[in-house]
Amino acid sequence: MIDIQKLTEKISKAVEEIHYNAEPNNLYIPIRYILSIGGKRVRPLLMLMAYNLYKDDVESIMNNALGLELFHNSTLLHDDLMDKSDLRRGHQTVHKKWDENTAILSGDTMLIMAYHLFDKGVKHPAAQTAFIDATLGVCEGQQYDIDFETRNDVTEAEYMEMIRLKTSLLLGYALKIGAILGGADADDVANLYTFGEKMGMAYQLQDDWLDVYGDTTKFQKKLGGDIVDNKKTYMLINALQLANPEQKAELERWIATTDGDADEKIKAVTHIYNIIGIDKLALNKIEELFATALQSLDKVKVAEEKKTALRQFANQLLGRKY
Amino acid sequence: MIDIQKLTEKISKAVEEIHYNAEPNNLYIPIRYILSIGGKRVRPLLMLMAYNLYKDDVESIMNNALGLELFHNSTLLHDDLMDKSDLRRGHQTVHKKWDENTAILSGDTMLIMAYHLFDKGVKHPAAQTAFIDATLGVCEGQQYDIDFETRNDVTEAEYMEMIRLKTSLLLGYALKIGAILGGADADDVANLYTFGEKMGMAYQLQDDWLDVYGDTTKFQKKLGGDIVDNKKTYMLINALQLANPEQKAELERWIATTDGDADEKIKAVTHIYNIIGIDKLALNKIEELFATALQSLDKVKVAEEKKTALRQFANQLLGRKY
Repeated sequence: MIDIQKLTEKISKAVEEIHYNAEPNNLYIPIRYILSIGGKRVRPLLMLMAYNLYKDDVESIMNNALGLELFHNSTLLHDDLMDKSDLRRGHQTVHKKWDENTAILSGDTMLIMAYHLFDKGVKHPAAQTAFIDATLGVCEGQQYDIDFETRNDVTEAEYMEMIRLKTSLLLGYALKIGAILGGADADDVANLYTFGEKMGMAYQLQDDWLDVYGDTTKFQKKLGGDIVDNKKTYMLINALQLANPEQKAELERWIATTDGDADEKIKAVTHIYNIIGIDKLALNKIEELFATALQSLDKVKVAEEKKTALRQFANQLLGRKY
Repeated sequence: MIDIQKLTEKISKAVEEIHYNAEPNNLYIPIRYILSIGGKRVRPLLMLMAYNLYKDDVESIMNNALGLELFHNSTLLHDDLMDKSDLRRGHQTVHKKWDENTAILSGDTMLIMAYHLFDKGVKHPAAQTAFIDATLGVCEGQQYDIDFETRNDVTEAEYMEMIRLKTSLLLGYALKIGAILGGADADDVANLYTFGEKMGMAYQLQDDWLDVYGDTTKFQKKLGGDIVDNKKTYMLINALQLANPEQKAELERWIATTDGDADEKIKAVTHIYNIIGIDKLALNKIEELFATALQSLDKVKVAEEKKTALRQFANQLLGRKY
């Protein structure tokens, strides 16, 4: 069986060993920096695991996997700039440590290096096209996310499509590309894609849920940040949809309150969520998505024990005991 | 013979007909906008002309050519943001017409669409790799350009390498990719690349020269902008290198003078250029580069009359009578 830990270490080592042109230093140092501050290397890991369902020599597609990791990090670099975030994984963001222009140009270069690395890997027209489709979808998701900030009428369907594009798509495509390169048939490719996409959406909704109902002793994160920021989460969108006129008016009053006591706002909005039943609604949706993900994995036509690592990964990602 | 005008119109029509996903509008409207405000479509034109030396069906590589045009425009979009430029081709830049985040994300998406279009074109591994190499080089050139702004010791060799990467490389690669897709042999591919690269460098140096010695009645552009901005041009870099101690001190005094009378500064610096002989030096270098470009074209092993259009293009680009 695949050892996820060992495979992750292998990927991290490959990330460290990426070849950069010697100059210009000012371009490549920020790229090395953002890659060095970590992350779980989820996307390359999924690609290698999917490939490994069909073939053993995972090292042979390492450059393809690195391409995906660099693409993902390039989006983080530009997203942090657009969001004016100061920190990423506990370290200064590139535009804070250097400046905005450095973040723009290093992000562009990183995006190009992503294609460069993918092109250096195993060449397969369908994988190449899948990679490009994935990267375009992520940009569309980011645009919807920006659009939603200034809208108060976002529907659940629109929200689900946004998180599908912005975060889940790349998990699905990581598996899809790994499967294509491994020589999987069309059904397996599609089922692995669905497994990744639904798992990613379950993860994102769980993130929304945890912000309200999480166990602070476990997550060491202050609850209610999304509520304070009026973030259009699965929770808020559904609360606005399902509230009766009185509850809706109260919710809107809290949304308009941006300079009051944060704890009071969190408490009041959570109370409305509780009355409407947003907690259950979210948990049901998460379970539904996660079940669909695992059913899709079930359909993949390889020996059950080969799929154990992917099943384990999904459970770990969602914080489930396995 | 190829009709450059007709080919340009064909490219412009293809640009207009690029397929965009229907949504999100806020992502794709700025991309359509920057493409709609024109430009001479030089890069796709060169690609089609090089292809046409070997094959007639130029339409078949139109998507590859559009990929190059989109890449070029994505760099303009981000360069304008980094330079805080208000205008591009007489129209508002994207970050002025919308905002900075729109410019960042639309630029990223445009870069991804460039790969997408190239991938939709004729598939050829060497052409694919050439395209990626070209795009990476342009970013490196842009970084050197930024680095040079805060340096006073840039050498001529460093400057030439910067303009090679930032502007000439893409002209060379446009021809190289067209030749590869047309089935040219390695020598022709290399010679066409050199033709484009040297032509591009001659053009860039002539641009530096025109800013000081141009005919204002012809160019409708105020002279001396680079001098006022202390731009590290071929002229200034060589003047600093070749000046005697007294001239150097005077040049440095003018460089330090950023709030005085602009016309006085232009007059004084131009006077120093004249004494040192920077005018001649630049003109000689331009001729040398242009001659090398044309010699490289001579070596391309296709019938002379087929090369007429490329020769005509080069002369037009450099403003020479043909």
